Amino acid sequence: MTTAPLFIALEGGDGSGKSTQSHLLRDWLTARGREVVLTREPGGTDLGRTLRREVLHGEDLDPRTEALLYAADRAHHVNTLVRPALARGAVVLTDRYIDSSVAYQGAGRGLGRDEIRELSLWATDGLLPALTIVLDLDAATAAARRGGEPDRLEREPSAFHEEVRATFLSLAAADPVRYAVLDASLPADEVHRAVVERVEPLLGAAR
Amino acid sequence: MTTAPLFIALEGGDGSGKSTQSHLLRDWLTARGREVVLTREPGGTDLGRTLRREVLHGEDLDPRTEALLYAADRAHHVNTLVRPALARGAVVLTDRYIDSSVAYQGAGRGLGRDEIRELSLWATDGLLPALTIVLDLDAATAAARRGGEPDRLEREPSAFHEEVRATFLSLAAADPVRYAVLDASLPADEVHRAVVERVEPLLGAAR
Repeated sequence: MTTAPLFIALEGGDGSGKSTQSHLLRDWLTARGREVVLTREPGGTDLGRTLRREVLHGEDLDPRTEALLYAADRAHHVNTLVRPALARGAVVLTDRYIDSSVAYQGAGRGLGRDEIRELSLWATDGLLPALTIVLDLDAATAAARRGGEPDRLEREPSAFHEEVRATFLSLAAADPVRYAVLDASLPADEVHRAVVERVEPLLGAAR
Repeated sequence: MTTAPLFIALEGGDGSGKSTQSHLLRDWLTARGREVVLTREPGGTDLGRTLRREVLHGEDLDPRTEALLYAADRAHHVNTLVRPALARGAVVLTDRYIDSSVAYQGAGRGLGRDEIRELSLWATDGLLPALTIVLDLDAATAAARRGGEPDRLEREPSAFHEEVRATFLSLAAADPVRYAVLDASLPADEVHRAVVERVEPLLGAAR
Protein backbone atom coordinates (compact mmCIF):
# COMPACT_ATOMS: atom_id res chain seq x y z
CA MET A 1 0.00 0.00 0.00
CA THR A 2 1.36 3.38 -0.97
CA THR A 3 0.79 6.85 0.39
CA ALA A 4 2.20 8.83 -2.52
CA PRO A 5 -0.14 11.76 -3.14
CA LEU A 6 -2.14 11.92 -6.32
CA PHE A 7 -4.17 14.79 -7.74
CA ILE A 8 -6.89 14.00 -10.29
CA ALA A 9 -9.39 16.35 -11.91
CA LEU A 10 -12.65 15.34 -13.56
CA GLU A 11 -13.83 17.65 -16.31
CA GLY A 12 -16.76 17.75 -18.69
CA GLY A 13 -20.08 19.48 -19.16
CA ASP A 14 -22.91 19.35 -16.64
CA GLY A 15 -24.67 16.01 -17.08
CA SER A 16 -21.54 14.19 -18.25
CA GLY A 17 -21.37 12.06 -15.09
CA LYS A 18 -18.48 13.73 -13.20
CA SER A 19 -20.22 13.29 -9.87
CA THR A 20 -21.09 9.63 -10.47
CA GLN A 21 -17.60 8.80 -11.71
CA SER A 22 -15.81 10.66 -8.92
CA HIS A 23 -17.85 8.75 -6.32
CA LEU A 24 -17.18 5.40 -8.03
CA LEU A 25 -13.46 6.21 -8.22
CA ARG A 26 -13.40 7.28 -4.58
CA ASP A 27 -14.97 3.98 -3.52
CA TRP A 28 -12.50 2.03 -5.63
CA LEU A 29 -9.53 3.91 -4.15
CA THR A 30 -10.87 3.65 -0.60
CA ALA A 31 -11.24 -0.11 -1.04
CA ARG A 32 -7.53 -0.18 -1.87
CA GLY A 33 -6.73 1.53 1.45
CA ARG A 34 -6.13 5.04 0.18
CA GLU A 35 -7.29 8.22 1.88
CA VAL A 36 -9.41 10.01 -0.70
CA VAL A 37 -10.52 13.63 -0.57
CA LEU A 38 -13.43 14.21 -2.92
CA THR A 39 -14.04 17.88 -3.61
CA ARG A 40 -15.25 20.28 -6.25
CA GLU A 41 -15.00 23.73 -7.75
CA PRO A 42 -16.56 26.10 -7.24
CA GLY A 43 -17.69 25.48 -3.72
CA GLY A 44 -15.27 23.04 -2.05
CA THR A 45 -14.77 25.43 0.93
CA ASP A 46 -16.93 27.75 3.05
CA LEU A 47 -15.77 30.78 1.09
CA GLY A 48 -16.26 28.75 -2.08
CA ARG A 49 -19.90 28.08 -1.24
CA THR A 50 -20.47 31.83 -0.82
CA LEU A 51 -18.76 32.51 -4.16
CA ARG A 52 -20.59 29.65 -5.89
CA ARG A 53 -23.89 31.20 -4.83
CA GLU A 54 -22.83 34.61 -6.17
CA VAL A 55 -21.50 33.25 -9.46
CA LEU A 56 -24.22 30.76 -10.34
CA HIS A 57 -27.31 32.21 -8.70
CA GLY A 58 -26.69 35.88 -7.83
CA GLU A 59 -27.11 39.01 -9.95
CA ASP A 60 -25.75 39.01 -13.51
CA LEU A 61 -21.98 39.34 -13.59
CA ASP A 62 -19.72 40.46 -16.40
CA PRO A 63 -17.28 37.78 -17.64
CA ARG A 64 -14.18 39.23 -15.94
CA THR A 65 -15.84 39.46 -12.54
CA GLU A 66 -17.06 35.90 -12.97
CA ALA A 67 -13.58 34.67 -13.97
CA LEU A 68 -11.94 36.44 -11.01
CA LEU A 69 -14.42 34.93 -8.56
CA TYR A 70 -13.70 31.45 -9.92
CA ALA A 71 -9.97 32.15 -9.62
CA ALA A 72 -10.39 33.35 -6.01
CA ASP A 73 -12.37 30.22 -5.19
CA ARG A 74 -9.64 28.09 -6.77
CA ALA A 75 -6.80 29.82 -4.90
CA HIS A 76 -8.59 29.31 -1.60
CA HIS A 77 -9.54 25.71 -2.43
CA VAL A 78 -5.98 24.77 -3.36
CA ASN A 79 -4.45 26.47 -0.33
CA THR A 80 -6.81 25.28 2.36
CA LEU A 81 -7.87 21.86 1.07
CA VAL A 82 -5.98 20.41 -1.92
CA ARG A 83 -2.37 21.13 -0.91
CA PRO A 84 -2.80 20.04 2.73
CA ALA A 85 -4.42 16.77 1.58
CA LEU A 86 -1.64 16.07 -0.92
CA ALA A 87 0.95 16.92 1.74
CA ARG A 88 -0.35 14.09 3.94
CA GLY A 89 -0.32 11.64 1.03
CA ALA A 90 -4.01 11.57 0.11
CA VAL A 91 -5.58 11.17 -3.30
CA VAL A 92 -7.50 14.33 -4.18
CA LEU A 93 -10.32 14.05 -6.71
CA THR A 94 -11.74 17.38 -7.80
CA ASP A 95 -14.95 17.75 -9.76
CA ARG A 96 -13.78 20.59 -12.10
CA TYR A 97 -10.50 22.51 -11.97
CA ILE A 98 -8.50 24.93 -14.16
CA ASP A 99 -9.71 23.51 -17.47
CA SER A 100 -13.32 24.34 -16.61
CA SER A 101 -12.35 28.00 -16.35
CA VAL A 102 -10.38 27.80 -19.59
CA ALA A 103 -13.39 26.23 -21.32
CA TYR A 104 -16.26 28.26 -19.82
CA GLN A 105 -14.68 31.67 -19.26
CA GLY A 106 -11.73 31.57 -21.66
CA ALA A 107 -13.49 30.00 -24.66
CA GLY A 108 -17.24 30.18 -23.89
CA ARG A 109 -17.19 33.76 -22.60
CA GLY A 110 -14.47 34.80 -25.04
CA LEU A 111 -11.94 36.05 -22.46
CA GLY A 112 -9.12 34.09 -24.05
CA ARG A 113 -7.93 30.60 -23.16
CA ASP A 114 -4.33 31.61 -22.44
CA GLU A 115 -5.27 34.55 -20.24
CA ILE A 116 -7.64 32.47 -18.15
CA ARG A 117 -5.11 29.68 -17.84
CA GLU A 118 -2.46 32.17 -16.67
CA LEU A 119 -4.89 33.59 -14.13
CA SER A 120 -5.57 30.12 -12.71
CA LEU A 121 -1.90 29.19 -12.66
CA TRP A 122 -1.21 32.36 -10.68
CA ALA A 123 -4.11 31.58 -8.35
CA THR A 124 -2.86 28.04 -7.65
CA ASP A 125 0.85 28.82 -7.77
CA GLY A 126 1.12 26.35 -10.62
CA LEU A 127 -0.53 23.25 -9.15
CA LEU A 128 -1.61 20.90 -11.97
CA PRO A 129 -3.28 17.48 -11.71
CA ALA A 130 -1.29 14.37 -12.59
CA LEU A 131 -4.35 13.26 -14.55
CA THR A 132 -7.38 15.05 -15.92
CA ILE A 133 -10.28 12.83 -16.91
CA VAL A 134 -12.49 14.44 -19.56
CA LEU A 135 -15.97 12.91 -19.61
CA ASP A 136 -16.96 13.67 -23.16
CA LEU A 137 -20.61 13.99 -24.14
CA ASP A 138 -22.40 15.90 -26.87
CA ALA A 139 -24.29 18.94 -25.62
CA ALA A 140 -27.76 17.65 -26.52
CA THR A 141 -27.34 14.41 -24.56
CA ALA A 142 -25.89 16.30 -21.61
CA ALA A 143 -28.81 18.74 -21.59
CA ALA A 144 -31.30 15.88 -21.67
CA ARG A 145 -29.60 14.25 -18.68
CA ARG A 146 -29.61 17.34 -16.46
CA GLY A 147 -32.48 17.67 -14.01
CA GLY A 148 -33.76 20.52 -11.84
CA GLU A 149 -33.64 24.28 -12.30
CA PRO A 150 -30.76 25.22 -14.67
CA ASP A 151 -28.12 27.61 -13.24
CA ARG A 152 -26.62 30.55 -15.12
CA LEU A 153 -24.17 28.47 -17.16
CA GLU A 154 -26.63 25.69 -17.89
CA ARG A 155 -29.00 28.26 -19.43
CA GLU A 156 -26.43 29.18 -22.09
CA PRO A 157 -27.33 28.13 -25.66
CA SER A 158 -25.99 24.90 -27.11
CA ALA A 159 -23.32 26.68 -29.21
CA PHE A 160 -21.75 27.78 -25.92
CA HIS A 161 -21.72 24.20 -24.64
CA GLU A 162 -20.29 22.88 -27.91
CA GLU A 163 -17.47 25.45 -27.63
CA VAL A 164 -16.83 24.28 -24.07
CA ARG A 165 -16.73 20.66 -25.21
CA ALA A 166 -14.35 21.44 -28.08
CA THR A 167 -12.03 23.22 -25.63
CA PHE A 168 -11.83 20.22 -23.28
CA LEU A 169 -11.03 17.99 -26.25
CA SER A 170 -8.35 20.29 -27.57
CA LEU A 171 -6.67 20.65 -24.14
CA ALA A 172 -6.65 16.85 -23.85
CA ALA A 173 -5.31 16.34 -27.37
CA ALA A 174 -2.35 18.61 -26.59
CA ASP A 175 -1.21 16.49 -23.62
CA PRO A 176 -2.30 12.84 -23.90
CA VAL A 177 -0.10 11.73 -20.98
CA ARG A 178 -1.90 13.92 -18.47
CA TYR A 179 -5.37 13.60 -20.00
CA ALA A 180 -7.83 10.78 -20.56
CA VAL A 181 -10.84 11.42 -22.78
CA LEU A 182 -13.64 8.95 -22.07
CA ASP A 183 -16.94 8.45 -23.88
CA ALA A 184 -19.48 9.54 -21.27
CA SER A 185 -22.43 8.22 -23.26
CA LEU A 186 -21.46 4.66 -22.23
CA PRO A 187 -23.02 3.03 -19.13
CA ALA A 188 -21.52 4.30 -15.87
CA ASP A 189 -19.81 1.00 -14.99
CA GLU A 190 -18.05 0.90 -18.37
CA VAL A 191 -16.85 4.47 -17.95
CA HIS A 192 -15.66 3.55 -14.44
CA ARG A 193 -13.62 0.64 -15.79
CA ALA A 194 -11.95 2.99 -18.25
CA VAL A 195 -11.23 5.47 -15.42
CA VAL A 196 -9.62 2.75 -13.29
CA GLU A 197 -7.49 1.63 -16.23
CA ARG A 198 -5.95 5.12 -16.38
CA VAL A 199 -5.70 5.71 -12.63
CA GLU A 200 -4.25 2.39 -11.50
CA PRO A 201 -0.77 2.90 -13.06
CA LEU A 202 -0.50 6.25 -11.24
CA LEU A 203 -0.89 4.83 -7.77
CA GLY A 204 2.43 5.01 -6.05
CA ALA A 205 3.78 7.40 -8.68
CA ALA A 206 4.45 11.05 -7.97
CA ARG A 207 1.55 13.44 -8.09
CA MET B 1 -21.19 74.18 -17.02
CA THR B 2 -19.60 71.08 -18.38
CA THR B 3 -20.64 67.47 -18.35
CA ALA B 4 -17.31 65.94 -19.32
CA PRO B 5 -16.80 62.84 -17.20
CA LEU B 6 -14.03 62.79 -14.62
CA PHE B 7 -12.69 59.85 -12.64
CA ILE B 8 -10.80 60.57 -9.41
CA ALA B 9 -9.39 58.12 -6.87
CA LEU B 10 -8.51 58.91 -3.28
CA GLU B 11 -5.77 56.75 -1.81
CA GLY B 12 -3.96 56.58 1.51
CA GLY B 13 -3.91 54.52 4.69
CA ASP B 14 -6.91 54.09 6.97
CA GLY B 15 -7.19 57.22 9.09
CA SER B 16 -5.70 59.50 6.42
CA GLY B 17 -9.01 61.30 5.84
CA LYS B 18 -10.13 59.79 2.51
CA SER B 19 -13.74 59.69 3.59
CA THR B 20 -13.75 63.30 4.91
CA GLN B 21 -12.00 64.62 1.80
CA SER B 22 -14.17 62.71 -0.65
CA HIS B 23 -17.31 64.11 1.01
CA LEU B 24 -15.93 67.67 0.99
CA LEU B 25 -14.97 67.31 -2.67
CA ARG B 26 -18.36 65.89 -3.54
CA ASP B 27 -20.08 68.86 -1.90
CA TRP B 28 -17.80 71.30 -3.72
CA LEU B 29 -18.47 69.64 -7.09
CA THR B 30 -22.21 69.37 -6.45
CA ALA B 31 -22.30 73.10 -5.66
CA ARG B 32 -20.82 73.67 -9.12
CA GLY B 33 -23.68 71.75 -10.69
CA ARG B 34 -21.92 68.47 -11.36
CA GLU B 35 -23.43 65.03 -10.86
CA VAL B 36 -21.09 63.27 -8.45
CA VAL B 37 -20.99 59.55 -7.72
CA LEU B 38 -19.16 58.88 -4.49
CA THR B 39 -18.16 55.25 -4.10
CA ARG B 40 -15.52 53.00 -2.62
CA GLU B 41 -13.59 49.76 -2.91
CA PRO B 42 -14.08 47.19 -1.68
CA GLY B 43 -17.80 47.32 -1.21
CA GLY B 44 -19.28 49.84 -3.67
CA THR B 45 -21.81 47.25 -4.98
CA ASP B 46 -23.99 44.49 -3.48
CA LEU B 47 -21.52 41.82 -4.54
CA GLY B 48 -18.74 44.09 -3.24
CA ARG B 49 -20.30 44.23 0.20
CA THR B 50 -20.37 40.43 0.33
CA LEU B 51 -16.73 40.28 -0.77
CA ARG B 52 -15.70 43.05 1.64
CA ARG B 53 -17.16 41.04 4.50
CA GLU B 54 -15.24 37.92 3.41
CA VAL B 55 -11.96 39.74 2.87
CA LEU B 56 -11.90 41.98 5.93
CA HIS B 57 -13.87 40.03 8.50
CA GLY B 58 -14.18 36.37 7.36
CA GLU B 59 -11.82 33.44 7.88
CA ASP B 60 -8.09 33.95 7.25
CA LEU B 61 -7.31 34.08 3.55
CA ASP B 62 -4.02 33.50 1.79
CA PRO B 63 -2.67 36.55 -0.09
CA ARG B 64 -3.60 35.32 -3.58
CA THR B 65 -7.19 34.58 -2.65
CA GLU B 66 -7.42 38.01 -1.04
CA ALA B 67 -5.95 39.72 -4.12
CA LEU B 68 -8.33 37.88 -6.47
CA LEU B 69 -11.36 38.83 -4.38
CA TYR B 70 -10.31 42.49 -4.48
CA ALA B 71 -9.84 42.21 -8.24
CA ALA B 72 -13.30 40.63 -8.66
CA ASP B 73 -14.83 43.42 -6.58
CA ARG B 74 -13.03 45.98 -8.74
CA ALA B 75 -14.15 44.42 -12.03
CA HIS B 76 -17.75 44.39 -10.87
CA HIS B 77 -17.56 47.92 -9.45
CA VAL B 78 -16.10 49.34 -12.66
CA ASN B 79 -18.57 47.53 -14.89
CA THR B 80 -21.77 48.18 -12.99
CA LEU B 81 -21.12 51.56 -11.40
CA VAL B 82 -18.04 53.51 -12.53
CA ARG B 83 -18.26 53.11 -16.32
CA PRO B 84 -22.02 53.77 -16.51
CA ALA B 85 -21.60 56.94 -14.40
CA LEU B 86 -18.73 58.20 -16.56
CA ALA B 87 -20.75 57.40 -19.68
CA ARG B 88 -23.47 59.81 -18.59
CA GLY B 89 -20.91 62.55 -17.81
CA ALA B 90 -20.69 62.26 -14.03
CA VAL B 91 -17.71 62.82 -11.79
CA VAL B 92 -16.83 59.56 -10.04
CA LEU B 93 -14.91 59.77 -6.77
CA THR B 94 -13.71 56.42 -5.48
CA ASP B 95 -12.34 55.87 -2.00
CA ARG B 96 -9.50 53.43 -2.95
CA TYR B 97 -8.80 51.91 -6.36
CA ILE B 98 -6.00 49.96 -8.11
CA ASP B 99 -3.17 51.56 -6.15
CA SER B 100 -4.57 50.24 -2.87
CA SER B 101 -4.22 46.70 -4.22
CA VAL B 102 -0.71 47.44 -5.49
CA ALA B 103 0.24 48.84 -2.06
CA TYR B 104 -1.50 46.35 0.25
CA GLN B 105 -1.36 43.10 -1.73
CA GLY B 106 1.51 43.78 -4.12
CA ALA B 107 3.93 45.42 -1.68
CA GLY B 108 2.53 44.73 1.81
CA ARG B 109 1.71 41.05 1.17
CA GLY B 110 4.70 40.58 -1.11
CA LEU B 111 2.79 39.39 -4.20
CA GLY B 112 4.64 41.82 -6.44
CA ARG B 113 3.57 45.32 -7.46
CA ASP B 114 3.64 44.67 -11.21
CA GLU B 115 1.67 41.42 -10.99
CA ILE B 116 -1.05 43.00 -8.89
CA ARG B 117 -1.23 46.03 -11.16
CA GLU B 118 -1.58 43.75 -14.21
CA LEU B 119 -4.34 41.82 -12.46
CA SER B 120 -6.26 45.03 -11.75
CA LEU B 121 -5.75 46.36 -15.26
CA TRP B 122 -7.18 43.13 -16.62
CA ALA B 123 -10.08 43.33 -14.17
CA THR B 124 -10.95 46.90 -15.19
CA ASP B 125 -10.06 46.56 -18.86
CA GLY B 126 -7.52 49.33 -18.32
CA LEU B 127 -9.63 52.05 -16.73
CA LEU B 128 -7.36 54.52 -14.89
CA PRO B 129 -8.33 57.69 -12.99
CA ALA B 130 -7.48 61.09 -14.47
CA LEU B 131 -6.25 62.03 -11.00
CA THR B 132 -5.27 60.03 -7.93
CA ILE B 133 -5.10 62.00 -4.70
CA VAL B 134 -2.74 60.41 -2.19
CA LEU B 135 -3.49 61.53 1.37
CA ASP B 136 -0.13 61.02 2.96
CA LEU B 137 0.20 60.40 6.68
CA ASP B 138 2.78 58.56 8.76
CA ALA B 139 1.57 55.21 10.08
CA ALA B 140 1.68 56.18 13.77
CA THR B 141 -0.55 59.25 13.30
CA ALA B 142 -2.95 57.24 11.12
CA ALA B 143 -3.20 54.48 13.74
CA ALA B 144 -3.90 57.05 16.48
CA ARG B 145 -6.71 58.56 14.38
CA ARG B 146 -8.51 55.28 13.67
CA GLY B 147 -11.37 54.37 15.99
CA GLY B 148 -13.39 51.19 16.54
CA GLU B 149 -12.47 47.54 16.16
CA PRO B 150 -9.55 47.15 13.69
CA ASP B 151 -10.17 44.97 10.63
CA ARG B 152 -7.70 42.42 9.26
CA LEU B 153 -5.51 44.94 7.44
CA GLU B 154 -5.58 47.48 10.25
CA ARG B 155 -4.21 44.84 12.61
CA GLU B 156 -1.03 44.48 10.53
CA PRO B 157 2.16 45.78 12.20
CA SER B 158 3.45 49.28 11.49
CA ALA B 159 6.21 48.04 9.11
CA PHE B 160 3.41 46.81 6.84
CA HIS B 161 1.72 50.22 6.89
CA GLU B 162 5.03 52.02 6.26
CA GLU B 163 5.56 49.77 3.22
CA VAL B 164 2.06 50.64 2.00
CA ARG B 165 2.75 54.35 2.46
CA ALA B 166 6.09 54.13 0.64
CA THR B 167 4.33 52.40 -2.28
CA PHE B 168 1.71 55.14 -2.65
CA LEU B 169 4.50 57.75 -2.64
CA SER B 170 6.54 55.91 -5.22
CA LEU B 171 3.55 55.40 -7.55
CA ALA B 172 2.81 59.14 -7.27
CA ALA B 173 6.45 60.14 -7.85
CA ALA B 174 6.49 58.16 -11.10
CA ASP B 175 3.55 60.10 -12.59
CA PRO B 176 3.18 63.63 -11.14
CA VAL B 177 0.59 64.66 -13.74
CA ARG B 178 -1.91 62.03 -12.68
CA TYR B 179 -1.09 62.09 -8.97
CA ALA B 180 -1.34 64.66 -6.19
CA VAL B 181 0.36 63.90 -2.87
CA LEU B 182 -1.14 65.96 -0.05
CA ASP B 183 -0.04 66.25 3.57
CA ALA B 184 -2.93 64.63 5.43
CA SER B 185 -1.69 65.80 8.82
CA LEU B 186 -2.95 69.33 8.02
CA PRO B 187 -6.43 70.45 9.07
CA ALA B 188 -9.19 69.04 6.86
CA ASP B 189 -10.12 72.42 5.32
CA GLU B 190 -6.53 73.07 4.28
CA VAL B 191 -6.30 69.63 2.69
CA HIS B 192 -9.60 70.31 0.94
CA ARG B 193 -8.27 73.57 -0.54
CA ALA B 194 -5.27 71.67 -1.90
CA VAL B 195 -7.60 69.02 -3.38
CA VAL B 196 -9.71 71.69 -5.11
CA GLU B 197 -6.59 73.31 -6.51
CA ARG B 198 -5.74 70.06 -8.31
CA VAL B 199 -9.29 69.15 -9.34
CA GLU B 200 -10.50 72.50 -10.67
CA PRO B 201 -8.29 72.53 -13.80
CA LEU B 202 -9.61 69.07 -14.73
CA LEU B 203 -13.24 70.11 -14.90
CA GLY B 204 -14.27 70.12 -18.49
CA ALA B 205 -11.18 68.18 -19.53
CA ALA B 206 -11.29 64.59 -20.69
CA ARG B 207 -11.41 61.91 -18.06
